[in-house]
Amino acid sequence: MRQTKLFSKTLRDVPKDEVSINARLLIRAGFIDKLSAGVYSYLPLGLRVLKKIQHIVREEMDRIGGQEILLPALTPKELYDITGRWNEIDVLFKVEGGGGRKYALGATHEEVVTPLVKKFVHSYRDLPVAVYQIQDKFRDEPRAKSGLLRGREFNMKDLYSFHTDRADFEHFYEQAKQAYLTIFQRCGLDAVVAEASGGVFSEKPSHEFQVFTAYGEDTIFFCPRCGTYKNAEIVRSVSVVGTAPGKPAACAECQGALAEKKAIEVGNIFPLETKFSAPFKFDYLDAAGKKQPVIMGCYGIGPSRVLGSVAEVHHDKEGLIWPASIAPYAVHLVSLCQAEADIKTADRLYETLTNQGKEVLYDDRTGARAGEKFADSDLLGLPKRVLISPKTLAKKSVEIKDRAAGKTTIVRIKSLAKLFSK
Amino acid sequence: MRQTKLFSKTLRDVPKDEVSINARLLIRAGFIDKLSAGVYSYLPLGLRVLKKIQHIVREEMDRIGGQEILLPALTPKELYDITGRWNEIDVLFKVEGGGGRKYALGATHEEVVTPLVKKFVHSYRDLPVAVYQIQDKFRDEPRAKSGLLRGREFNMKDLYSFHTDRADFEHFYEQAKQAYLTIFQRCGLDAVVAEASGGVFSEKPSHEFQVFTAYGEDTIFFCPRCGTYKNAEIVRSVSVVGTAPGKPAACAECQGALAEKKAIEVGNIFPLETKFSAPFKFDYLDAAGKKQPVIMGCYGIGPSRVLGSVAEVHHDKEGLIWPASIAPYAVHLVSLCQAEADIKTADRLYETLTNQGKEVLYDDRTGARAGEKFADSDLLGLPKRVLISPKTLAKKSVEIKDRAAGKTTIVRIKSLAKLFSK
Repeated sequence: MRQTKLFSKTLRDVPKDEVSINARLLIRAGFIDKLSAGVYSYLPLGLRVLKKIQHIVREEMDRIGGQEILLPALTPKELYDITGRWNEIDVLFKVEGGGGRKYALGATHEEVVTPLVKKFVHSYRDLPVAVYQIQDKFRDEPRAKSGLLRGREFNMKDLYSFHTDRADFEHFYEQAKQAYLTIFQRCGLDAVVAEASGGVFSEKPSHEFQVFTAYGEDTIFFCPRCGTYKNAEIVRSVSVVGTAPGKPAACAECQGALAEKKAIEVGNIFPLETKFSAPFKFDYLDAAGKKQPVIMGCYGIGPSRVLGSVAEVHHDKEGLIWPASIAPYAVHLVSLCQAEADIKTADRLYETLTNQGKEVLYDDRTGARAGEKFADSDLLGLPKRVLISPKTLAKKSVEIKDRAAGKTTIVRIKSLAKLFSK
Repeated sequence: MRQTKLFSKTLRDVPKDEVSINARLLIRAGFIDKLSAGVYSYLPLGLRVLKKIQHIVREEMDRIGGQEILLPALTPKELYDITGRWNEIDVLFKVEGGGGRKYALGATHEEVVTPLVKKFVHSYRDLPVAVYQIQDKFRDEPRAKSGLLRGREFNMKDLYSFHTDRADFEHFYEQAKQAYLTIFQRCGLDAVVAEASGGVFSEKPSHEFQVFTAYGEDTIFFCPRCGTYKNAEIVRSVSVVGTAPGKPAACAECQGALAEKKAIEVGNIFPLETKFSAPFKFDYLDAAGKKQPVIMGCYGIGPSRVLGSVAEVHHDKEGLIWPASIAPYAVHLVSLCQAEADIKTADRLYETLTNQGKEVLYDDRTGARAGEKFADSDLLGLPKRVLISPKTLAKKSVEIKDRAAGKTTIVRIKSLAKLFSK
């Protein structure tokens, strides 16, 4: 992509009410635009990152047997009446259409997916089933100040699994947990699994995937002796008698000293037991022909939240630093050429790399100063910057800078394509 | 994909209130599920078709220089107040969040895209710009009885173009028109361009892409002498004095006899002139440094409507008949094998074809009768049915049936992979 064609540009000013690191960086770099609090547009560079994250999520969900579907956002009130969640979910956006039809905008999709799967599953032979979707969710968050980490409209992958019994559910739950860890690792996030409360759903704990960062909204306690992570909410509820509320000194299980860290939740998985199969009367016939309730689990990752988390974790004071796996382009070809013959050489290099299937963003602007181009390149944060200038061309070379390591190397143009094909 | 793993199944019963051919066929075949009037879920087979249509649309939009973005559904009321369309668009779903924040659910996105592009475009050097998105739209249609042809929530590709002047706009408009014709042709739809009213936007006509079918909602008049198609709405408005209203006998331009046909609108393109750049004060500086208004166009195709249209046009009384370009799978491998050795041969054939990158749906059910399998296969409508049975295996062969032509041929298993790699 030629930067002179790219309609987005880096910006000097960021909306004053935007306080989160992730949104400030992504807006300045022209990856996203803020429409209103918690509601963002994806510009070409940001959408490329989002799609790469979605692609990784999709691959790992397919690998554990997930079947992709797509559910609507408009959910009839009648379905929420069945579970009693119309008034229970306080962040539900409610919409009234003509003829008094009432809908919720999907904040989660148990009310849609449970009766849907019920239509096709009658016998134990039809189970297990795991379906997922990648779709936008809506939540009327009272505070939406964390950029892509807490949106009123945000992208979500939600998977739902349906099982004959707890053992089968637990087997899949472990598979999903591993798939999630793989997803975060592939996206450049070092996530840990923390126990959290099962909430209204289950006696069992749910699990959160947490990435440590100084500005995280969540507090996680780590017990070095057990090697377990726990969300503060459940640590507090079992805190040792005599300690200040919310500040446990020791692990409730092994009495080890607890370490406290700030983190961002990037995913969560829940045992749902029969919480939704019961109200929707979703039973199956077992091998003996007897009715049994279906056991469910749900599994969420927000690709837009992952995008924001990567920006929170991978940046320096100059700008973003994309992991290669989800970078919008692999290479930022920055040209300082002004003479016609030099520009032609730079153009040829761009075309050669592009034709070889390399994803290249080409800063072909002739009106921008070198300092401006370097600053923009650091802000955009592509993994490799390839500098072509009269100076490098005198040596028939380019200068390659690794954005993360900051190191530069000089490489002859003839060897460049070979180097990148590795 | 093994059919025993596919969670959707063909159905005998279709919701009684579902009258449209497209939805009835797609629901019976397990491609979509009706959640409420005009609101559908995509099951694995339907989502595969939708994605293939989106992929074709994306390729053709990229080819004319469109840059993909993604805009939110939640649109603040303040933006609609600027254009005065908050009360003007009668199908707008309106949502009120906490703190009295009012949003419209995007029915179209001029109010979002115009101020967005304005942020990055200041000079004639920044123009032209063409951005598009593939995203779900919401319209509170009073009558939503046409399945995927008129949804309350539906998938849309909307492209917006921004130009320095009318000549540049018109040049792009023609490119977009050709790209649209290519898209429909690639999706197996024989679309014609019909003139329609510019509506509130422009003095100039807009253009619709219409596919003829007996149950279309639109009426199109064709003048064989001029070779032009016109939507009934504009033909009526210039109808010859003395004819019954709405039933013109002759072409207003050349007096040729008009032929009337029913059709489905599958896309439309609009000259917007300065309808949106004016209220958003979207000007640019020309080469002389003088402020000029930006000229806009908008261009819509509904991938979900294309899906529904293909179902309306390509089916027979047995079921769907997918064009190869958008079929969910290329091959339906139907096994009637019951003996263990035969099943192994069928399994191997499935794996061989799949490993060669062929998209295969494998009816590996052992509990279903031959007649049921044939009926399901015709209903699903994949381009090629490959039948493997004790009878064909006796000749070391399979029987290939072309779903559209209905013809069958016997092919030796050894030659099959080679045949399909063509």
